[in-house]
Amino acid sequence: MKKTKDNYSINGRVWIEKDGDTYIGYGRVVLLERIKKYGSISMAARSMDMSYRRAWELVESMNRLSEKKLVETRTGGRSGGGAIITDEGERAIKLFWSLYDDLKIFLKEEDKKQLEIFS
Amino acid sequence: MKKTKDNYSINGRVWIEKDGDTYIGYGRVVLLERIKKYGSISMAARSMDMSYRRAWELVESMNRLSEKKLVETRTGGRSGGGAIITDEGERAIKLFWSLYDDLKIFLKEEDKKQLEIFS
Repeated sequence: MKKTKDNYSINGRVWIEKDGDTYIGYGRVVLLERIKKYGSISMAARSMDMSYRRAWELVESMNRLSEKKLVETRTGGRSGGGAIITDEGERAIKLFWSLYDDLKIFLKEEDKKQLEIFS
Repeated sequence: MKKTKDNYSINGRVWIEKDGDTYIGYGRVVLLERIKKYGSISMAARSMDMSYRRAWELVESMNRLSEKKLVETRTGGRSGGGAIITDEGERAIKLFWSLYDDLKIFLKEEDKKQLEIFS
């Protein structure tokens, strides 16, 4: 969010779609990173104040839309299963942050530009 | 929305905030343009399948957040009042579309860039 004249600011969002469905956006990438950190979908969800059901749905959606799974889950075991981020998942995380950084630059530039044009 | 590899596409949204509240976004600008076309908030709302209440709230929000009103309303009269877009409203419309056009260029460029990096 950048300041334009007075306290106006330009803000934006960016995401990746597949066939018109959201594939990767800000919330999904944060979820992937939390899964990577905790090795568990339920712990990742809890850390974000997200329901397990919602986190599971997002993971399912990403895995379904991707050519290769972004998250692999293991069921059972003493710890009640776990989850890891695949190489494809790592690529998706990188791609999104690259896009996100560029959006921030874009917003900053627009801020300067619109300020010049409209002030 | 632009095509990346396979049928992935990068999409985005951009809007102007004031003090953290949405001031001008896509829907609000379309509403302003319809008000300009029809000279009436209720007809503008109807043309967008939006409730009159919602349209009125959006107009109130924009007028409140702007230094000068974007929409001026006249009550009463045979036609039951009307609404016009002020010069400030025209500026807001122009500013938003300028921003929006730049976003489309940004998305197109990102599409090309991310394609190169990640394919």
